Amino acid sequence: MNIRFYNARILTMEEPLSIINGELHVSGNTISYVGTSAQAPKDDKFDREIDCKWNLLMPGFKDAHTHSAMTLMRSYADDMPLQDWLNQMIFPVEAKMGAEENIYFTKLAVMEYLTSGITAAMEMYLDPYAIQLAFSECGFRNVQVSGINKFGPSLEEMEKRYIELNKKDDLSSYMLGFHAEYTCEKGLLEDIAAMANKYKAPVFAHISETKKEVEECKGRYGVSPIELLDQMGMFNYGGGGYHLVHVSDEDIEIIKKRKMYVVTNPASNLKLASGIAPIKRYLDEKIPVAIGTDGPASNNCLDMFREMFLVTGLSKVREEDAACCDAIDVLKMATVNGAEAMGLEDCKYLTKGSKADLIMIDLSKPNMQPLHNIPKNIVYAGSKLNVALTMINGKVLYEDGQFNIGIDQEELYAKCNDLFKKIYGAAN
Amino acid sequence: MNIRFYNARILTMEEPLSIINGELHVSGNTISYVGTSAQAPKDDKFDREIDCKWNLLMPGFKDAHTHSAMTLMRSYADDMPLQDWLNQMIFPVEAKMGAEENIYFTKLAVMEYLTSGITAAMEMYLDPYAIQLAFSECGFRNVQVSGINKFGPSLEEMEKRYIELNKKDDLSSYMLGFHAEYTCEKGLLEDIAAMANKYKAPVFAHISETKKEVEECKGRYGVSPIELLDQMGMFNYGGGGYHLVHVSDEDIEIIKKRKMYVVTNPASNLKLASGIAPIKRYLDEKIPVAIGTDGPASNNCLDMFREMFLVTGLSKVREEDAACCDAIDVLKMATVNGAEAMGLEDCKYLTKGSKADLIMIDLSKPNMQPLHNIPKNIVYAGSKLNVALTMINGKVLYEDGQFNIGIDQEELYAKCNDLFKKIYGAAN
Repeated sequence: MNIRFYNARILTMEEPLSIINGELHVSGNTISYVGTSAQAPKDDKFDREIDCKWNLLMPGFKDAHTHSAMTLMRSYADDMPLQDWLNQMIFPVEAKMGAEENIYFTKLAVMEYLTSGITAAMEMYLDPYAIQLAFSECGFRNVQVSGINKFGPSLEEMEKRYIELNKKDDLSSYMLGFHAEYTCEKGLLEDIAAMANKYKAPVFAHISETKKEVEECKGRYGVSPIELLDQMGMFNYGGGGYHLVHVSDEDIEIIKKRKMYVVTNPASNLKLASGIAPIKRYLDEKIPVAIGTDGPASNNCLDMFREMFLVTGLSKVREEDAACCDAIDVLKMATVNGAEAMGLEDCKYLTKGSKADLIMIDLSKPNMQPLHNIPKNIVYAGSKLNVALTMINGKVLYEDGQFNIGIDQEELYAKCNDLFKKIYGAAN
Repeated sequence: MNIRFYNARILTMEEPLSIINGELHVSGNTISYVGTSAQAPKDDKFDREIDCKWNLLMPGFKDAHTHSAMTLMRSYADDMPLQDWLNQMIFPVEAKMGAEENIYFTKLAVMEYLTSGITAAMEMYLDPYAIQLAFSECGFRNVQVSGINKFGPSLEEMEKRYIELNKKDDLSSYMLGFHAEYTCEKGLLEDIAAMANKYKAPVFAHISETKKEVEECKGRYGVSPIELLDQMGMFNYGGGGYHLVHVSDEDIEIIKKRKMYVVTNPASNLKLASGIAPIKRYLDEKIPVAIGTDGPASNNCLDMFREMFLVTGLSKVREEDAACCDAIDVLKMATVNGAEAMGLEDCKYLTKGSKADLIMIDLSKPNMQPLHNIPKNIVYAGSKLNVALTMINGKVLYEDGQFNIGIDQEELYAKCNDLFKKIYGAAN
């Protein structure tokens, strides 16, 4: 399909940020023109022309850490201490989840991502073959990360997944990773590090999410999780950490030296009482920060608008400095930095030759008025209500509240509610 | 108009919380029936029957602290230290605002309240006659609070407003109040307290929002703002404080003794780096907490869903206790407690005889699925996207994204953008 968006404000996210008034052309899965209408090629044929009515086109948000199928646990395990939450509520449910649950609840999550303008997710969850299938059937761009830990899978299985699932199709890729230091034996971590060095690959994991995690790691090994992992050569080819709430000066030096990404998950860190990450410090140190929603058992929603406000708001209150963590930096985290962390270099700008992963922000809702500073309006006042259209890989998957992902919405909800009852009947 | 809502889930917010499957009838501005369809009166005639498709009806949210017309400053003064923000950006703009700005930007705010399911606002801003007109013309329920301070108006003018604007129409009321201790001379505060005692009236004000405010008050008078005000008899007939972030044990005792309300404004407290209010302590002490958005220069959006998540999330991280500040308590703050603080006793439940101030939450959006615990879904995952309908005083003012408040939306936006340019041209 060739699609022309016209009468558009366009925020390409290239530096320096500016808004173009003009049009954007999509040819297949690629952006073929961005610029003024006067300069646009006149001989292109379009299957569809979309009047943007001077609403805003911008790159889709990149959700750089999530566990999509945890939509199954939404509002099931709230207002509980972290350890009870994990041991009594989450683990027993996960033990009952099969491919079917992974597929249907991942698809439910995809629907929610689309409503929030999220066009790609960095996923870590249970059954990567089922999950890849779910994402791909919906047309949703996904970067899966291995969540290996002492309960499984085997190292050989992880390597097989890395080979088979990486670039399985145009929408899917797979990266090395592991769940967390505290769920892996030392030998396993060393084996993962060896594999990262074998493939010259970056590695991602949950790191330093809670004070307790850091203290227990120091108790076991005398060093912080990042120090331990770096000693093994885990990040010789980069990668990053999810959460990174509790870090030392030494940790910061390693993060910089290894060119690691910080993926921050502020809503989850609030709801599980983990703490507030030192985002201002990361910005000062020029460490790239991306943003994730985390899974909907600990958040409980998949909403980049909520996360963006929290990144800047929590930094301001943490540092007692209303001037810190500018909204524009946060908008870059949610788009450009996320794309870079996920290896989606061709999805980060709205430029000719980039993949057509874009959203239309409805500026005609009252929360976007007046139109004084549109990027700040998005970060400080934006909501799912402002997402008029979400396009991934050149396909419009969500528009005016309707989904176009090959799913009967009512059927999916009925199936999810049935599976919910089946699982919880079995788990309780 | 007589309206019948059927095929509805109904959360009346009466204790103990439960969801009724049935229907709700509105007769004029009043709820005339809530219950099962089997027991519903069969002889009522309706002007309109609304199939709720098993979506949820609940009381509208009550925004218990706001400055609506600050929509004029949205994204104008962000990422700045508080004092520069106030002195360089906010005050010079406010000095240029006349009745016209107050009217149009209040109406813009009303539109946004409706998208967030907010059916009443406790307002404190510049020109109460213009503001009352703006709210009333839209059909929006409003409780204005005097913001008197050393710059104006006179005490006589405040009393005149109290008499004239209180219960001016069925939608509007007016309460005594003042801006804050730090913007009033001691003599003025004493005069306000005397007036509160004369009218046996509650008093509301910004209190203990920042550490600096509390320290400076102690420097001036040797006591905290609450202690100072209580010594004058300010809260002999109740009232409450906006923000109340920085309080002592002595302050807490006064708040309890005077049966004051705490109105918390978490998003504003983040964005201005004021701190995190001790909501768990207030809950433990059985102090009623209501929720406000504050004005859109310091938030920047009017969204009760954001505020609700923040109230519980920030409490959890502040107390390092994921179990504290249950979502259900927060839902009560946003509805029942807000109504009580604002003197809107007849708007707090969906019960026969109550005013028909209600909203329909769209459960068919993916963020509300599965339907395991609907109240928690609303607090933890809800967004403006879920507000399908907002009714105030028996009139549907917002439905399926369309407004019915006697305003041409495009005209209003054009006017607001023009006024914005006029004001900022003059202010800079």
